[in-house]
Amino acid sequence: MNRRELVVQIEKKKSVLCVGLDTDINKIPQHLLKEADPIFAFNKAIIDATADYAVAYKPNIAFYESMGVKGWESLGKTIDFLNESYPEVFTIADAKRGDIGNTSKMYAEAFFNTMAFDSVTVAPYMGIDSVSPFLAFEDKWVILLALTSNQGAFDFQLKENNDGEALFETVVKNAQEWATPEQLMFVLGATKTAFLERVRKAAPESFFLIPGVGAQGGSLQDVLTKATNKDYGVLVNSTRGIIYQSKDIDFAEAAGRAALELQQEMERILF
Amino acid sequence: MNRRELVVQIEKKKSVLCVGLDTDINKIPQHLLKEADPIFAFNKAIIDATADYAVAYKPNIAFYESMGVKGWESLGKTIDFLNESYPEVFTIADAKRGDIGNTSKMYAEAFFNTMAFDSVTVAPYMGIDSVSPFLAFEDKWVILLALTSNQGAFDFQLKENNDGEALFETVVKNAQEWATPEQLMFVLGATKTAFLERVRKAAPESFFLIPGVGAQGGSLQDVLTKATNKDYGVLVNSTRGIIYQSKDIDFAEAAGRAALELQQEMERILF
Repeated sequence: MNRRELVVQIEKKKSVLCVGLDTDINKIPQHLLKEADPIFAFNKAIIDATADYAVAYKPNIAFYESMGVKGWESLGKTIDFLNESYPEVFTIADAKRGDIGNTSKMYAEAFFNTMAFDSVTVAPYMGIDSVSPFLAFEDKWVILLALTSNQGAFDFQLKENNDGEALFETVVKNAQEWATPEQLMFVLGATKTAFLERVRKAAPESFFLIPGVGAQGGSLQDVLTKATNKDYGVLVNSTRGIIYQSKDIDFAEAAGRAALELQQEMERILF
Repeated sequence: MNRRELVVQIEKKKSVLCVGLDTDINKIPQHLLKEADPIFAFNKAIIDATADYAVAYKPNIAFYESMGVKGWESLGKTIDFLNESYPEVFTIADAKRGDIGNTSKMYAEAFFNTMAFDSVTVAPYMGIDSVSPFLAFEDKWVILLALTSNQGAFDFQLKENNDGEALFETVVKNAQEWATPEQLMFVLGATKTAFLERVRKAAPESFFLIPGVGAQGGSLQDVLTKATNKDYGVLVNSTRGIIYQSKDIDFAEAAGRAALELQQEMERILF
């Protein structure tokens, strides 16, 4: 998907909501366990209930990988369902991959060819050759970790170099020389409120994928007033605040209501 | 596997060789393509031919992931075969994972429970909570990226902070506060010869996983004289120099010969 298509969809739905599909067999409603593929059944119901309010979906790959071959089957069915039933939504493989060039190429194969995601999250530690193989795919995106939402972000990402520049800023600065804002986004945790404006200044054109609103404590108001740009420029992820609203038969309906509430708040602030 | 068992095996085989199983369907001998699972058939033959000379095996997960569900099946069979037929070897899931705490826990599940690897490579960018869930598993190891063998290592890993300390040194220093050398190794590229002694000094007790000897240009002599410690302290990986020595019916025999040559050079220098 190209950038224009993403922006058109944001305008149509008046939403920058991304729904995290971190689907955990221990957290989904019990009645789904008798389905042939409970994980996919859960995802499908959540997607159907939220697709009017969300512009992106983001399965975190770890949750599928932990189930082995079965998990990869559920993930494959999920991305196929998204592409067939909701081709307008932006899909993110939240995989945080990254390796030397010939190996990153294999990860690109995995997420862009074997499965047809629009984008993949990538860890920057190994530098340019861990990122560039993903960029060889037209209209596919790299979403590079910059400043993450967790406590461990303080260990390295906020360390300053001898020019007084934090590591995440070096990442944002250098990576913009590797790719245009048509193919490169950054991950920026909503919990790091103090840095939202600083990162926006360092990457004025880029889209940011912003996790950490809700369960992790980030403020939607802050994100939408401090991190946006003329193309909106943000995808705000919510996972636990949407998909685990109810453990009962009404779980999808409850997810739909939670997504609608977020969309309405986004519409009020942004449009 | 605990550290003592690893050292005992090194002494028995007089080898610190790790064989990389980056198995690519486009590079394996053609006659294997008629097997039900060509990737596993290749791996099994390579392992049988090299197990006398190697103390560790390291499948790079990207190569399996790029084949989707089939690839995960081949990977599962490979780790099961290693654990059943060669329980004394150390197994490494070269996955370079890392995510927020509740998600890293899922990756630990994937590689330590769903599949029974001894260790997994982890990227340090997200800090302590991306690493600690792996350490909750007894006798399982984290192998943390420090200084990698690729060109992109120069982008961030060698950037100095305002104390004149390179990022990879901060990683090595801080991570030693998170885990003991009984559960934590570091990745150190053989191509970064100038830093071998510097990293050994920063982590005197730790084991290092050292890729980059051979095809990538690193010197075995340098590694074995500059990066070792009293427990040997290194696992030297070779992939292309072993597994793709022949594309013919004799591929396993050729791999065995290449592994034997490396073992003999290791024995001459180290023992």
